[in-house]
Amino acid sequence: MSNPVISSDKVEGSAVYNPDGDKLGSIDNLVIDKRSGLVRYAALEFGGFLGIGSDRYPIPWSLLKYDTGLDGYVVPLQKSQLEKAPRYAQSDTPAYTDDYGRKVYDYYGVLW
Amino acid sequence: MSNPVISSDKVEGSAVYNPDGDKLGSIDNLVIDKRSGLVRYAALEFGGFLGIGSDRYPIPWSLLKYDTGLDGYVVPLQKSQLEKAPRYAQSDTPAYTDDYGRKVYDYYGVLW
Repeated sequence: MSNPVISSDKVEGSAVYNPDGDKLGSIDNLVIDKRSGLVRYAALEFGGFLGIGSDRYPIPWSLLKYDTGLDGYVVPLQKSQLEKAPRYAQSDTPAYTDDYGRKVYDYYGVLW
Repeated sequence: MSNPVISSDKVEGSAVYNPDGDKLGSIDNLVIDKRSGLVRYAALEFGGFLGIGSDRYPIPWSLLKYDTGLDGYVVPLQKSQLEKAPRYAQSDTPAYTDDYGRKVYDYYGVLW
C-alpha cells in the first residue's frame, strides 16, 4: 500500500493538471486551520507570465489526486472553471473566515 | 480576532521553544494525511551541530502554540522529554502507519 502521508514541502511546487493531462499551474502553498490542523485548501498558482501577474486559486484539498505517472496532482477542473473561480493576489491573501471558506467550497461543489 | 489559518511555508523553518523560552529547534516540514488533509505531525529538527546529525522529531500538531512575542511555536516539552522521544533521520522518514501514529501520540499523551 502506498504511504498514507505526504510532506508539505513535497506538495509545494508540485504541478497540477486537468483530467486531460494539461498543466494548469503549480501548488504554491497549503493553508492550514490552526486549531484543527486541517488543510483548508491548496493555493494553486495559475495565470500570468513567468510568475508575473499570476494569481492564487484556493482549491479544496479533497479535489487533489496525486498521479504518479504525471508526478503531479490532477484536479477535476478545466481552465474555464478556474477563470471564474475565487482567487487572490499573493500579496493579498484573504483571512480564511467561515464565509470565505463556504464561498470557495461552494464554487467547487465540495462540502465545507 | 487573529487569522484562523496559517500557510505551510510560514510554518516550515519556524523556531520551536519550550515553555521557558529556550529554543528546542525548528520545524522542518509538516506531514499530512493524504485522504483527510489532516496534519499528522510537524517534524521538529533538533540535535546535531550546524544541521549535521540532527534528527526529526514528530510532534502532534495540537501541541504547537504560536507565540507572537517569540515569533515561533511553544511546545509543552523539555529537552529531556525530546531525548527519549520517537525520532528518525531525515533520510529515513518512516511510513506513517496507524501503529506509528499511535506510538508518537501516546508518547506525548495526545489522543490519536
